Amino acid sequence: MLIYASQLNPKIGALSHNTEKILNAIEKARLEKAEIVVFPESAISGYPPEDLLLYDDFIDQMHQELDKIIEASKDLFIVVGTIRRNEEKQGNPLFNSAAVIYDKKLLGFKDKSLLPTYDVFVEKRYFESGDEQKVFDFKGKKIGVMICEDVWAHSENVYKKYEIDPIKDMQKLKPDLLINIAASPYYYQKKDLRIEVFSKVSKTLNCPQIMCNQVGANDQLVFDGHSMYFDKEGTLINVTKGFVEDHLFIDTEKEAPPFSYKVDPLQDLYNALVLGVKDYFRKLHFSKALMGLSGGIDSALVLCIAADALGPHNVLALNMPSRYSSLSSFEDSNLLAANLRIELMDIPIDHMYQQYLDLLSPAFQGKSFDTTEENLQARIRGMILMALSNKLEYIVLSTGNKSEMAMGYVTLYGDMCGGLGVLNDVTKTLVYELAKWINRKKEIIPKNIIKKAPSAELRADQTDQDTLPDYSIVDKVIDGYVEDHLGVDEIVKKYKLDETIVKELVERIHRAEYKRRQGPPGIRVSKKAFSKGRFFPIVQGWIAD
Amino acid sequence: MLIYASQLNPKIGALSHNTEKILNAIEKARLEKAEIVVFPESAISGYPPEDLLLYDDFIDQMHQELDKIIEASKDLFIVVGTIRRNEEKQGNPLFNSAAVIYDKKLLGFKDKSLLPTYDVFVEKRYFESGDEQKVFDFKGKKIGVMICEDVWAHSENVYKKYEIDPIKDMQKLKPDLLINIAASPYYYQKKDLRIEVFSKVSKTLNCPQIMCNQVGANDQLVFDGHSMYFDKEGTLINVTKGFVEDHLFIDTEKEAPPFSYKVDPLQDLYNALVLGVKDYFRKLHFSKALMGLSGGIDSALVLCIAADALGPHNVLALNMPSRYSSLSSFEDSNLLAANLRIELMDIPIDHMYQQYLDLLSPAFQGKSFDTTEENLQARIRGMILMALSNKLEYIVLSTGNKSEMAMGYVTLYGDMCGGLGVLNDVTKTLVYELAKWINRKKEIIPKNIIKKAPSAELRADQTDQDTLPDYSIVDKVIDGYVEDHLGVDEIVKKYKLDETIVKELVERIHRAEYKRRQGPPGIRVSKKAFSKGRFFPIVQGWIAD
Repeated sequence: MLIYASQLNPKIGALSHNTEKILNAIEKARLEKAEIVVFPESAISGYPPEDLLLYDDFIDQMHQELDKIIEASKDLFIVVGTIRRNEEKQGNPLFNSAAVIYDKKLLGFKDKSLLPTYDVFVEKRYFESGDEQKVFDFKGKKIGVMICEDVWAHSENVYKKYEIDPIKDMQKLKPDLLINIAASPYYYQKKDLRIEVFSKVSKTLNCPQIMCNQVGANDQLVFDGHSMYFDKEGTLINVTKGFVEDHLFIDTEKEAPPFSYKVDPLQDLYNALVLGVKDYFRKLHFSKALMGLSGGIDSALVLCIAADALGPHNVLALNMPSRYSSLSSFEDSNLLAANLRIELMDIPIDHMYQQYLDLLSPAFQGKSFDTTEENLQARIRGMILMALSNKLEYIVLSTGNKSEMAMGYVTLYGDMCGGLGVLNDVTKTLVYELAKWINRKKEIIPKNIIKKAPSAELRADQTDQDTLPDYSIVDKVIDGYVEDHLGVDEIVKKYKLDETIVKELVERIHRAEYKRRQGPPGIRVSKKAFSKGRFFPIVQGWIAD
Repeated sequence: MLIYASQLNPKIGALSHNTEKILNAIEKARLEKAEIVVFPESAISGYPPEDLLLYDDFIDQMHQELDKIIEASKDLFIVVGTIRRNEEKQGNPLFNSAAVIYDKKLLGFKDKSLLPTYDVFVEKRYFESGDEQKVFDFKGKKIGVMICEDVWAHSENVYKKYEIDPIKDMQKLKPDLLINIAASPYYYQKKDLRIEVFSKVSKTLNCPQIMCNQVGANDQLVFDGHSMYFDKEGTLINVTKGFVEDHLFIDTEKEAPPFSYKVDPLQDLYNALVLGVKDYFRKLHFSKALMGLSGGIDSALVLCIAADALGPHNVLALNMPSRYSSLSSFEDSNLLAANLRIELMDIPIDHMYQQYLDLLSPAFQGKSFDTTEENLQARIRGMILMALSNKLEYIVLSTGNKSEMAMGYVTLYGDMCGGLGVLNDVTKTLVYELAKWINRKKEIIPKNIIKKAPSAELRADQTDQDTLPDYSIVDKVIDGYVEDHLGVDEIVKKYKLDETIVKELVERIHRAEYKRRQGPPGIRVSKKAFSKGRFFPIVQGWIAD
């Protein structure tokens, strides 16, 4: 069989636009003499369409777009992800479905059985579970069709225990080929797990398997693509390029050439961040980004990402020194901007800062300098960025990293201003690793930026470690508490940390909840981001009451 | 039987604190010679505990708190809402459960069968469904125990269709009394629906019914209490006070005295907003609120609410005029603050505004006045409020209403600054109704504030209707599109509106999604709030691409 798996980048809810892409891919597949054409989960709507699914006209339109695809399927066997009305049983009104089409006829639907409702997924809000597993006959072969999560329950290393394992039912149907359509989001170092899961499925079913995954960033989620083909021994035979539209073309009869597959996790992480920025802008019809450059490593990294995502000519950086800004920060920023060929504009804020101090001094009742004055500086910078954004149609990129967001070491309405928090989900540890990775061939980020002690430069001689433990400790607690949901005792044991420090850091994480709630959407690149798929009350009495 | 139903106000996650309240209530019930004591759903954790449920130590502690309650139950039959580990079947690791206790023994658990996963509810993220319905024997009577949603599927007017109706199973068990423990949040005009639903259940089961509901505000949700007792004919016999801790004491053998029940929906709405503010502050251990007073109706209403919630002496209002502020606004604000005996401080912003114009003029490239300059004024005000908040430990209340939030007629990081968006979920139409309701006995909000045309006063001679249709139209579209998920065509038909206008308003709603995402948490008082229980992509191509 000749199979064309099309890894497309849909835009959420852009039903006609996405269908247009699907139709184009069908024609390309036809030119390549493919017999089977495969598209990702929810290819017509893009994944996840969220509450657009609550509108009848949205569902109607999806049914109509599917008709166009059926119409275009002459002589081809097509599997495409869509969402359809549940007219068959009680319960939720929709199915997350794979439409199986052959030669201008709809052969049927395979509705997703396991509906992920954890982390960033809320499928049980919308969908009803499909019941039995199905194979479809094509040229004497039995083609099993499944959707994403349905194969995951077969592995030990899954996120969630389910009552059933659909692969066991599929096994009884003895498929000759398994097609899995997916919208499986990226996170750092996830790909190895994915290979393990799919490989086991192929072995169990003793048949080759195609996994066709969505690519592209939709709001906070980045889908990496990396669609895969496994032989019946569970060996990975081919993978598409990650983070771009691509396709797999497979001849199941042909011996596969030797395939070696190397992954650079930092390269993937960097690509994910670049795609996160690129698609956010492109899909919103914006092209220009604006950001403050502090001389620190976070804004330096964001500048590199923005330059790659949008082109240096579309990025404007602002240098906004106050009385606490160091000369070296200024020089480092200039050097970095020059290295990236990005325009750097100077708007000093110290005069404005003084104006606020004067204006507010009667109301401040003679109280001494505290974070209020620090926040004032950060907020003046935020206001300047937003004013230029409003006047000249830039989107502001905010540069706070995950460790700072965890600790509340950011100013609400100050450095948290922005349309997109590029590093919201990247710990300080990973920020350093990415910076060094960027400099792996030549120095783009000035060495001094990487070497110096982190400082917000909002008061004299300040460093982050005046008020925080070392970031290597902070990041362990984030790993344990935020990503793995370990309690304080477990973290203390696992990382051999001091209990008082761990407790204090966990308390800080909860105390900063109110800030993060109003932060910019971030690009999710870890197992558990603050900005999506994590729900905590601001008002709670469990931690730090 | 003598029943004491205790309508408590728990704090989310404050397990020992909540258990303490439960233990106190048990002692009170004992003094009143009650035989049965009932507490709301999730009384130990407070509802909803959200992702605190993902921590093992949190669940452990809940089991331990339950032991304390069992220990305190000598001679009493107690039903209390808790969350327990699922050690019985595959699937999610927890049950949302009612512990049924008698005389220091745990008789068993009734686990919730229907797990709401729509609107603000995400129970399938955490819980596994309990299977069968149960009755418990007490002094020769069969006591049916159910949790909240489990009785709702019995009505026609439900939010969601389920595959089963647990009341039909309960019917077979022929209970003598049904105890329903609930955490059913308030929304405007919901109570009538609740009475209808519970009344039908009593009729079907032909037995009396107690519904014991949580009270109190937890982040964005307000639980109104209004616990109820119905006789076996489905007649409402008694209701607790709403929006405060209270209890029902019922003698099932006694003829009920005549009971008439009148509801004032505006009074309830006002109470909900007051409780929303009060509990947010109290549970966060804050006492003082700060807000800008513009001379408009929204900030006037918020000031009244804040005064009632926190006491006038705990509220500070700021008057922050710019060159576009009218003298009448200033006078109206002064009169209002005087009526409420609230301190009003003047911090004029015009000088600061000019400083920004001067600072930014080179970067603005000679472009003319637009929303940028309007936003500057709003953001200077936001900064001043936040500076005082930081320095003097106020929480800032933001005053934008639901209609403005829908339209994006608010400034991100400007008037959207604040810890709580008091009117986020109150349309302009309801703002007027509430203002008139407040003035029903005497004029508290100056007539002029109610009468004048809405204006942000951010440019000369501005009114909201320069750029928006009349709010009565805006609010119809909010009702149709946001609350009832109607499409444009359906809204045009239902409200007899112009299609172009409806389309434009729906587009505005989606275009403002990015602002609302960074807005303060609001108090949810409608069927569908922007701030909780509504999920839309910022980047989407269905509307207004």
